[in-house]
Amino acid sequence: MAHIELGVDEKEFPGIRGPMMFRPDTAKPLNELAEVLLRRQPHPLTPGERELIAAYVSGLNECRFCCASHSAFAAAQLDTGMTLVDQVRADLSSAPISAKLRALLQIAGAVRDGGRKVTADLVAAARAEGATDLEIHDTVLIAAAFCMYNRYVDGLGTLAPDDPLGYAASATRIVEVGYGVF
Amino acid sequence: MAHIELGVDEKEFPGIRGPMMFRPDTAKPLNELAEVLLRRQPHPLTPGERELIAAYVSGLNECRFCCASHSAFAAAQLDTGMTLVDQVRADLSSAPISAKLRALLQIAGAVRDGGRKVTADLVAAARAEGATDLEIHDTVLIAAAFCMYNRYVDGLGTLAPDDPLGYAASATRIVEVGYGVF
Repeated sequence: MAHIELGVDEKEFPGIRGPMMFRPDTAKPLNELAEVLLRRQPHPLTPGERELIAAYVSGLNECRFCCASHSAFAAAQLDTGMTLVDQVRADLSSAPISAKLRALLQIAGAVRDGGRKVTADLVAAARAEGATDLEIHDTVLIAAAFCMYNRYVDGLGTLAPDDPLGYAASATRIVEVGYGVF
Repeated sequence: MAHIELGVDEKEFPGIRGPMMFRPDTAKPLNELAEVLLRRQPHPLTPGERELIAAYVSGLNECRFCCASHSAFAAAQLDTGMTLVDQVRADLSSAPISAKLRALLQIAGAVRDGGRKVTADLVAAARAEGATDLEIHDTVLIAAAFCMYNRYVDGLGTLAPDDPLGYAASATRIVEVGYGVF
């Protein structure tokens, strides 16, 4: 049971969904930020690649709800599905992804550890693989944002269901309608 | 110099201001979130108290720009000014604040360490001092949000000026016009 009375059935609205219904005024910018960062087009990174960054950071933060959710959202939008998500989360260095995406995920991992962990060398390595300023900026902000979402979800003690079916259903909804229209 | 070409003079637009001008689409929800969490009324916590939570977390994260900024914003809106901000940051246990605000700041410090560090005991202690569900929710989200803002600012290697005058000028602007109208 969550630390506060969310006013919803947590089994029906698990994870971040309860706090978002409890506080619509903050839910609006939180959803808008996710929509811009993870879905808005045109963008040099696909929604699947951006969701993969979100899933990777959420896994490092051990946030079960966010990791399961964004892993499902990434899998639903990557040709390689959940297999690739699992490979990236298990061993970033050997996962079959582009050198650019690997370098961006390394930046994301550094952001998760702390902003000052992002070194000029990490940024130069991403740039050497073709990453643009926008891709570096958005990678830093996606990773930083999931350090927020993860703490929001777990800091309020919300429910993280075990059944993968719910996350798959959420993935269908995100792919079809996104995080909202802003 | 920041890790990416922000397209602005960093001395004129230090810290988070450069990345926000580089990427207005993400700046909008980032500013809206700050406005709702730190300034929107009515709210059981004053803007000064909410900025104090932001300053406290930014200090724990050692984000110089955010800590100096939100310390100045808190000081400008608290009767006790910067003295109290410094006391809270130096030793939360002895700072002359209400028992409720101290318990909320302890929750904020736990969120900073990681979402699952927020225990039922910490929440019960805040509730015993009169904290409401909204105050607990917003404390968790303010602390989580500054784990994002801090990483965004430092992860992009932005400039944090030493001169306190710039932060004081920003405080005047925030008190007068806020983070934006949404």
